[in-house]
Amino acid sequence: MPRIAYVNGAYVPLEDASVHIEDRGYQFADGIYEVVLRVGGRFWDLEGHLKRWARSLSELEIRAPISEAALRTVIAKLVEKNRLGDCMIYMQATRGVASRNHPFPAADTAPALVLTAKPIDLEKLNARASKGVAVITRPDIRWGRVDIKTVGLLPNCLAKEAAVRENAVEAWLVKDGKVTEGSSSNAWIVDDKGQLITHPLGHEILGGITRQTAIACAESLQMKVVERAFTVDEALKAREAFITSAMNLVTPVIAIDGKKVGEGAPGPVATRLRARYVQHNAEG
Amino acid sequence: MPRIAYVNGAYVPLEDASVHIEDRGYQFADGIYEVVLRVGGRFWDLEGHLKRWARSLSELEIRAPISEAALRTVIAKLVEKNRLGDCMIYMQATRGVASRNHPFPAADTAPALVLTAKPIDLEKLNARASKGVAVITRPDIRWGRVDIKTVGLLPNCLAKEAAVRENAVEAWLVKDGKVTEGSSSNAWIVDDKGQLITHPLGHEILGGITRQTAIACAESLQMKVVERAFTVDEALKAREAFITSAMNLVTPVIAIDGKKVGEGAPGPVATRLRARYVQHNAEG
Repeated sequence: MPRIAYVNGAYVPLEDASVHIEDRGYQFADGIYEVVLRVGGRFWDLEGHLKRWARSLSELEIRAPISEAALRTVIAKLVEKNRLGDCMIYMQATRGVASRNHPFPAADTAPALVLTAKPIDLEKLNARASKGVAVITRPDIRWGRVDIKTVGLLPNCLAKEAAVRENAVEAWLVKDGKVTEGSSSNAWIVDDKGQLITHPLGHEILGGITRQTAIACAESLQMKVVERAFTVDEALKAREAFITSAMNLVTPVIAIDGKKVGEGAPGPVATRLRARYVQHNAEG
Repeated sequence: MPRIAYVNGAYVPLEDASVHIEDRGYQFADGIYEVVLRVGGRFWDLEGHLKRWARSLSELEIRAPISEAALRTVIAKLVEKNRLGDCMIYMQATRGVASRNHPFPAADTAPALVLTAKPIDLEKLNARASKGVAVITRPDIRWGRVDIKTVGLLPNCLAKEAAVRENAVEAWLVKDGKVTEGSSSNAWIVDDKGQLITHPLGHEILGGITRQTAIACAESLQMKVVERAFTVDEALKAREAFITSAMNLVTPVIAIDGKKVGEGAPGPVATRLRARYVQHNAEG
């Protein structure tokens, strides 16, 4: 069965799914996106993702292409049309098509909306998490508003590519000596008191939906979460480290720049937190 | 006659010109571009633009979609098919289409190439320059490699939109108290000794092709050019200010943040430099 995408009102075979070359997403990165998991028939953190979607649009003054209710319907239909079980939904909105010019186009320009869905293999993700992953560090050279989830992801791609070339799965981005976050995940450490430390919200990190749920899960486990920036050196001396994102859930980090974190194996805090996170989403 | 665009090997009506939704330009801003003017049958600074095109591709390790010779042919054919006189050619290359994933796709992924052309009205541009333009200042929140001419232009669009809302034509971007450049042009001032001052090359500005030619033109007029950063305060106290870009050529700036520069009218240095620049390109 061919994969089906949603493009500006129509469900079309993915291979034919296209946008105009003057879509501002293509010429200016003038658009935003979200990634949502569906596991066991449930969308994980859908409310949080829809809320952030609305915030990203609002920050850029992009009109919502369709109502939130309609978007929920499209998401559900897309899953159905693709006959998907566990899957990942990608949704992107841009400021629409207009003759190329930097300022915003006429107010009646229709924003564009594109969605795709593809199967995920949660077993495989779990297997990766059970081994833990390696990260490298790279300078954080992104723009000053990474709290908006825009498609301007080239610096993230370059950092991720650098990670892959060093057999790592993520690059932790370092600004003024501190780790802000990963190229597509939030970064965490566990200090010698067992406290969970992660960068505070602000313009310097994306406010991860998984990060937010992980904080709630940690607190439900009586773990103390401290939102402050940490250095690479602190991370190397930490008991544990891990990353959170929609696709990574909670995934232990066992090495940074080729140096072991803690015992060089997934630690108890990240492992418990992942289990709690999965349980939380599975039960709603 | 419908406008014609070039998309990945084909000349197609602009209204049908599209790219796949999983083109990395659309999902990651993983692409680069150039803008070239053609006036009086001559391409202005084409060699410089092609050289920067190749550099941008190389910096991002994107394979050239077609050879430079073939690209020259496409540019010429596009002008011919659109029966254009004075016009602007826009060309964009991306890393191509691949299932969405941050790291670079398989090495055999074909990069994408898109070109459009549209008429320009040089008289209108000249009229604007003869009056001079207003600029505003905005914080420079762009990423750390703006020397690469990528399509990751959202911060530029936001700054330009802010300018338009204040009845200005450009936003000068300010970093650590210094003007780096405009949102789509380089920034210059003329100090009380008559010296032309503009930000030095590096990762903080785009190495403008028009900027480079303007330096050569200034020197041919015995004007002294100093490549150093300047503050907004210096600019406000300057004799003159101006911007350079392919579309602006050399355009006098007569106000910054609503305050007059010099006499609040185009000054002699910018006016002479513009004339020399036009003459240089017209004569080759």
